[in-house]
Amino acid sequence: MKKIITIDREFGSGGREFGKRLAELLNIAYYDEEIIDEISDKTDLALEYVRSIVEKAPPLSFPITIGQTFSPILPPYTEQNSKIYVEQAEIIKELASRSDCVIVGRCADYILKDSGAIRIFVYADMEHKVKRCQERSPENEKLSNREMAKKIKAVDRDRRKYYEFFTGEDWNDRLHYDFLINTSNKDIKELTRAFSQIFDINFDIK
Amino acid sequence: MKKIITIDREFGSGGREFGKRLAELLNIAYYDEEIIDEISDKTDLALEYVRSIVEKAPPLSFPITIGQTFSPILPPYTEQNSKIYVEQAEIIKELASRSDCVIVGRCADYILKDSGAIRIFVYADMEHKVKRCQERSPENEKLSNREMAKKIKAVDRDRRKYYEFFTGEDWNDRLHYDFLINTSNKDIKELTRAFSQIFDINFDIK
Repeated sequence: MKKIITIDREFGSGGREFGKRLAELLNIAYYDEEIIDEISDKTDLALEYVRSIVEKAPPLSFPITIGQTFSPILPPYTEQNSKIYVEQAEIIKELASRSDCVIVGRCADYILKDSGAIRIFVYADMEHKVKRCQERSPENEKLSNREMAKKIKAVDRDRRKYYEFFTGEDWNDRLHYDFLINTSNKDIKELTRAFSQIFDINFDIK
Repeated sequence: MKKIITIDREFGSGGREFGKRLAELLNIAYYDEEIIDEISDKTDLALEYVRSIVEKAPPLSFPITIGQTFSPILPPYTEQNSKIYVEQAEIIKELASRSDCVIVGRCADYILKDSGAIRIFVYADMEHKVKRCQERSPENEKLSNREMAKKIKAVDRDRRKYYEFFTGEDWNDRLHYDFLINTSNKDIKELTRAFSQIFDINFDIK
């Protein structure tokens, strides 16, 4: 079967590790930063600038203002942002048509929803997300568990806004995904190894 | 690995079929009606009576009234209902300790949450749930698609109320489950065959 797999994930749930390991186990391409690099190459924008825009949700006030005033002139930040999203969507489609792959984030689930992609959402409870983030944060940037939980919520709020801004859909709606995977209490390496077995069998989306 | 698998499912999503096929493929026990039969044997209540109470959510007004008045006397229906739930929970624990198994519904995910059970939630979009229900309804009981959608929503509302009444939790909260599986657009037989591969690998809940 064709193996085009998209992964959305809550911050701290280990979704990125899950995606990387899955791509390795299935021996297929893996994209996240790479996509941004490619956008960067195509648009001649500095990598860091592109990265900062794609990582951060656009201010929510823009689409609301636009909706209320029907202003034909978009603020430069939104225009730039929308241009990047459109290019990014094209690149994602191109990559998915090129070879089997895992694509993490970037609304890839939405962009590839009609192309037979298997869309995965990875999540966990707050306790495990905080624990995972604490284990990975540098010694000189230690936050309290409460501060870390706040940061995790803020990142996911941005991801949700970003998704909603560009797709008009709720990032949390389970109907956007084929599988939702809870990583709380689990070893992600073993979980990925178990889950990768699914792809040995043909269960194409009709 | 130990294979205790609980399945919650939206009405019409094919969760029951998924559970039965999974049990067959893994060669382990399967319970749903069987649990009720066993309750029936233990309590000397007529099977049909037990079945009707377990299938239907208790009136939501009961717990609210109890909370407000701290009345020590419960209405007979609720008392009977709670008694059945408690017995049912004991039986579910007993069954899960006896052998590997799949248990569909009956708040089994909640009852077995601390015993290393793999908790699955099966769902689908309304279009596919209606289609599935229409294909399975007898010729002389045909509903319009709109009536069928209404029926599907009503059954799930009852399931949600039942779950909330006995566990105090939201049936739809993804944190109660390890995997959520969307059956829309999929062949359930192939999907189950693919998913059953997961259990070949050891990914015990810690």
